[in-house]
Amino acid sequence: MRLPLIQFIVITLCGFSTFAQQHPIAYNTVADYSFIKEALSKTPLLNESFGGLKQSVDAFIGKDIDVPVPKDLAGGYTHERHKENYTIMFNSSVLYQITGEAKYAEIVKKLFLKYAKLNPTLKNHPLGSNPNPGRLFFQPLNDANWLVYTGLAFDGIYNYLTPEERKQIADGAFKPEVDYFTNDLEPWFGWIHNHAVWSCAGVGIVGIATDNKDYVDMALYGKHKDGKSGLLANLDGLLSPDGYYTEGPYYTRYAILPFYLFANAFQHYKPELKVFNRRNNVLQKAFTNALQQTDIIGQFYSYNDALKEKNFTCNEMVEVLDMVWGTFGADSSLLPVARMQKRVALSRGGASIAKALNRTGEKGKNVSYPYKSIELTDGAKGDEGGLSILRTGKGDNLVSLIYKYSAHGLSHGHFDKLNINLYDGKNEILSDYGAVRYISIEQKSGGKYLPESKTYSKQTIAHNTLVVDEKSDFDGDEEESQKYHPAKLFSNVSSGNVQVVCAEDDKAYEGVKMQRSIYMVNIPGHEKPLVVDLFNALSNTSHQYDLPFQYQGTFIKTNFKYTSSNNAQATLGKKNGYQHIWKEAEAVLTNKPLTQFTFLNDKSFYTISSITDDSTHILFTRTGANDPNFNLRREPAYIIRKKGVNQTFVNAVEIHGVYNANAENAKGSYSAVNKMEILQNDANYSVVSIVFDGKPLLIIQRNSNFNQHAENEVIVNNKKYSFTGNYTVLYNDSTIK
Amino acid sequence: MRLPLIQFIVITLCGFSTFAQQHPIAYNTVADYSFIKEALSKTPLLNESFGGLKQSVDAFIGKDIDVPVPKDLAGGYTHERHKENYTIMFNSSVLYQITGEAKYAEIVKKLFLKYAKLNPTLKNHPLGSNPNPGRLFFQPLNDANWLVYTGLAFDGIYNYLTPEERKQIADGAFKPEVDYFTNDLEPWFGWIHNHAVWSCAGVGIVGIATDNKDYVDMALYGKHKDGKSGLLANLDGLLSPDGYYTEGPYYTRYAILPFYLFANAFQHYKPELKVFNRRNNVLQKAFTNALQQTDIIGQFYSYNDALKEKNFTCNEMVEVLDMVWGTFGADSSLLPVARMQKRVALSRGGASIAKALNRTGEKGKNVSYPYKSIELTDGAKGDEGGLSILRTGKGDNLVSLIYKYSAHGLSHGHFDKLNINLYDGKNEILSDYGAVRYISIEQKSGGKYLPESKTYSKQTIAHNTLVVDEKSDFDGDEEESQKYHPAKLFSNVSSGNVQVVCAEDDKAYEGVKMQRSIYMVNIPGHEKPLVVDLFNALSNTSHQYDLPFQYQGTFIKTNFKYTSSNNAQATLGKKNGYQHIWKEAEAVLTNKPLTQFTFLNDKSFYTISSITDDSTHILFTRTGANDPNFNLRREPAYIIRKKGVNQTFVNAVEIHGVYNANAENAKGSYSAVNKMEILQNDANYSVVSIVFDGKPLLIIQRNSNFNQHAENEVIVNNKKYSFTGNYTVLYNDSTIK
Repeated sequence: MRLPLIQFIVITLCGFSTFAQQHPIAYNTVADYSFIKEALSKTPLLNESFGGLKQSVDAFIGKDIDVPVPKDLAGGYTHERHKENYTIMFNSSVLYQITGEAKYAEIVKKLFLKYAKLNPTLKNHPLGSNPNPGRLFFQPLNDANWLVYTGLAFDGIYNYLTPEERKQIADGAFKPEVDYFTNDLEPWFGWIHNHAVWSCAGVGIVGIATDNKDYVDMALYGKHKDGKSGLLANLDGLLSPDGYYTEGPYYTRYAILPFYLFANAFQHYKPELKVFNRRNNVLQKAFTNALQQTDIIGQFYSYNDALKEKNFTCNEMVEVLDMVWGTFGADSSLLPVARMQKRVALSRGGASIAKALNRTGEKGKNVSYPYKSIELTDGAKGDEGGLSILRTGKGDNLVSLIYKYSAHGLSHGHFDKLNINLYDGKNEILSDYGAVRYISIEQKSGGKYLPESKTYSKQTIAHNTLVVDEKSDFDGDEEESQKYHPAKLFSNVSSGNVQVVCAEDDKAYEGVKMQRSIYMVNIPGHEKPLVVDLFNALSNTSHQYDLPFQYQGTFIKTNFKYTSSNNAQATLGKKNGYQHIWKEAEAVLTNKPLTQFTFLNDKSFYTISSITDDSTHILFTRTGANDPNFNLRREPAYIIRKKGVNQTFVNAVEIHGVYNANAENAKGSYSAVNKMEILQNDANYSVVSIVFDGKPLLIIQRNSNFNQHAENEVIVNNKKYSFTGNYTVLYNDSTIK
Repeated sequence: MRLPLIQFIVITLCGFSTFAQQHPIAYNTVADYSFIKEALSKTPLLNESFGGLKQSVDAFIGKDIDVPVPKDLAGGYTHERHKENYTIMFNSSVLYQITGEAKYAEIVKKLFLKYAKLNPTLKNHPLGSNPNPGRLFFQPLNDANWLVYTGLAFDGIYNYLTPEERKQIADGAFKPEVDYFTNDLEPWFGWIHNHAVWSCAGVGIVGIATDNKDYVDMALYGKHKDGKSGLLANLDGLLSPDGYYTEGPYYTRYAILPFYLFANAFQHYKPELKVFNRRNNVLQKAFTNALQQTDIIGQFYSYNDALKEKNFTCNEMVEVLDMVWGTFGADSSLLPVARMQKRVALSRGGASIAKALNRTGEKGKNVSYPYKSIELTDGAKGDEGGLSILRTGKGDNLVSLIYKYSAHGLSHGHFDKLNINLYDGKNEILSDYGAVRYISIEQKSGGKYLPESKTYSKQTIAHNTLVVDEKSDFDGDEEESQKYHPAKLFSNVSSGNVQVVCAEDDKAYEGVKMQRSIYMVNIPGHEKPLVVDLFNALSNTSHQYDLPFQYQGTFIKTNFKYTSSNNAQATLGKKNGYQHIWKEAEAVLTNKPLTQFTFLNDKSFYTISSITDDSTHILFTRTGANDPNFNLRREPAYIIRKKGVNQTFVNAVEIHGVYNANAENAKGSYSAVNKMEILQNDANYSVVSIVFDGKPLLIIQRNSNFNQHAENEVIVNNKKYSFTGNYTVLYNDSTIK
């Protein structure tokens, strides 16, 4: 079954540039395939992955696979057929290289020859998306996917094809697509955007596979080969120096795959380019940070446009993880992820990580990915705000709070300046809606983004941050939002027991300066942390301020009275997302300094304790209004509404107790917060006092001239507190460190 | 560490009857303990279970455990303290017997002496439930639990106590509780009801433990020892000959535990009573059928009052399963359940099943409990209707349909005559709300049944069966409903590919005769079954008929237009559960013979296809109206509304396709039902034709003189069909068998 290691030189034919290349090279080299074949029989997970691939392809061997004229949206026949075709072609080319069996090359060749006939006849897809329609698919992104995988497939069966067949495929199957991208869709091809990464990777890989230097250069440096667009410009422009991808982790997953596929191909083709090492290994950082932006079951954090069903066991992450292992070397922290993926790519890295898993065996089973607190900058230069993830606890008890003060995030960004999300173990507690979309379901507009994505889930009210006057940040203007970003004032996520991030924004709402400080405090004697959220809104004019908490859970109890919408209910507002929210109940608080709401999620209770005043209203809402196609999930929110010139929201989010309905057991179902007070809140300092479990928790924070070496003396209740830096936190008069 | 097997005779003191007894006897005998001790070191699961018990008790050793004056509801301090106390006492008595260490007996004794002081002082609980308040707890049921476990605990440390201590405890701790039950709460003690089973078991076990024949006789034969009440009357009256417990599986779990605990104690104490063999081992049948009434992850079916969080890994089922094994002998079908329970009781059966699991080892891991189609009669004599579970598929692909034509189900019954529920794998698809209750959560009325249980979840509209004129069965009168039951007309759940149950009811709605036939058909070439639901309502007067489908899932698509409640929504009605339902959308169908609605749940699509006419309205609803305490889950329903004298509802419920959002893959998301027609529907026959995947599916059913040997000749579309029995089903003109 082993292939002879034939090496030969092909003199390229007319229409191709005149350099020669050994194949395969684009996905695995000859040496890589030797390594994989050597490992195969001795490495169960590799063998299973190989078996899975073989089974998926064998089902089509000997069949006449359809290459239909494009007609449908995602989920429809022609869309799914073409998608499956490029998958079969790529997989079968890999099987051909591993097994040497001609049938695997033959099936790829036959499909290629059909595409070589079909593609020159194609016009824009009849249901093409505007302004950039696809050809084989309704959107060109899918065409770009097709190009990447068929490019790799061509390279894999290169040696099986005659020169005439190669030319027929290059001219018939590939050229119309490449020409379409680089001519008809030139601006799209020239974007700095994940779509462009895919299309450039497609053109580049086809260039390598067909020995076409023109394609390779357009892919690397843009249509005009001036470096203003193309893969390298995207690599420099899309990722921050930390490897943060501005569209968020759901799209990082998607955007890094073509980066890796092309970087891997170039590593073989032109190692001197050192794509993997560009910008201090920024691609490696992007991958690591994508993993750090998942919950403990591997689901990507759902901010920006995201589908909650996606996790790090998806194909993209399997492929990339294995390339990371193969490229940057063994890293045992990745083994728990590979174990959860339950399969490997048939690449050098995949074979290598499968061997490592084999060596680790049973004893690695209870190890989890080493999640930790991290801070990431946004922007190509790292100067456009960022994101902090505050974490505490281990394994199933990991608590993660995401504080987002990043730039907008291109077309998949939301109006969510200074937003927070909270995860407790595997559960999303203060949630982000993500995108309104049912991917791949034809009946739901072919899997496209649905209108409610724009009208609801992108809007500020769909998040856990301040909404001023029922408008979204930048009044929902994406272009405007894209120009600005908040600024981090100070932070410390390295300390064990007090983690803090403070950021401000004065652009999202004209004339309103917002400053939000998030403290995650491990209080001695308490297993779970307390989150203290200090949110100041400063303005010269009067506004309505809404601070929503999108809580996931079951309403348990409030410590205040409210009025329910019993027989009829109406929307909370008319636009900016408010039209999608039903008002289920409302409370007008008077003389209620401490307002508490407790809910239950899975096995824990959660209480939001708030300092409120006579201007405060509380709203209980639920999504689902003005949703004629039932696209929205019905999700509750708890909204604190205040009116005035300046307003301060102080909230403590508490995780407490244990609930086990199966054992009929509820412990600690009551909050430990007994009292909350603002003792000072001015341009110099904010001082908040919380009586927690009967003892005082005191937070003192500078509000100007932030400096971690600053010396402070603050008098609180006639007592002097001295500290160095931007903040101090004391519990029962002892500093928490 | 082994106890000397001391046997001695105690001459009982005044106040006790004059028979003598060896102890321990109530939970395990001396021989049982020898068996357990012998197995302990060699049987990991037994050892872990022992370790878990030891750890839970050791945490209290040397501490002064509080026995507070009762004050709180469930979830509150005093309630949870007393609950934990009796658990510690029982567990510690078992540990004493196994280890021989005095500290385990001492902790029990100390608690007993505190109860001996407290109990004589108790009046009715300050928050006692009406009309039957408890003493240590708000409801006497919890006092009965206390009596059962402390009775077992007393027996376990009997030999550790001095005669004086025994008397002090018997008189102080036990007698006030027994007297309270048998005197103050005499009618409650005399019920035929699970509460009475617990209280009688408590009195009986205390009788055995304290050598008090009077208690034993009252427990067995009732307060007046005439056999009209007491444990044996309950055993004869509560279970049907099949072992079906009329309150449903959630309560079977709860009711069989005291039956087993008392039967086990009597097996040791008076083996000649043969309690376990009474009524052809009805207790064994009750347990087996409780298991059969769970989904594949062990959750009890949620009809009647049920909490969905309860599954067969709860304490009650661990205890009973192990007793079943110990009493009726090894039964390998129980091993998968024991494996999921992950622990065993420290009983002879528990030790024995742990040994069996040890022997089976890894190879049993992928075996699941052998779920099968079953039919159960209701009523002490088995003549009060019943319940059928139609099943097809294996493992994760098990599809289960529950058709309920049972009696009311006592105080935990719902108004759900001729109801169906559907489960696909681990997912509830056509659901039953269960009870509105947050067990053990003090803030939710102390874990009691909440008002919405009565006003919503018991009502007919909360189910998947016909509602006439917006009223519940028997107009919601429980006493009236308790008098009647539907009748099964014919059924066959043993055939592989067509399972059918037909039942009728003419009492639930005055002047309306309802007949519902459910067919579960495996259509050749299709992996999942098609459910065809033929529901006839016959009356002499005009009515509004609502047939709701409580679907669990995400709305995907309808094949008809509807009008949504966009900016405002109102309740669907004013009472009988309708006041809790929001109307989200409504359709008035005209000239629409085939109406289809598709939803998604997890990885499958589901389509309800319906024959509709010009009288038909469709309603999309969601629970949550008039719910001031946010007690209700927000759940959707799809309601088919027809008006007229007689009406027929023909619905096909189809499971189709595969969805994987992580892999971005949707296959088979469209229904295969192309057309549906009623070709005949009269007193003689119903004939339904469904074009499924392009080929005709024909169902012909007799409607009178049901007889499995009846010969039929029916002309359909000029073609003669002959068959024997009550029905025939053909696909593409071939009979499906």
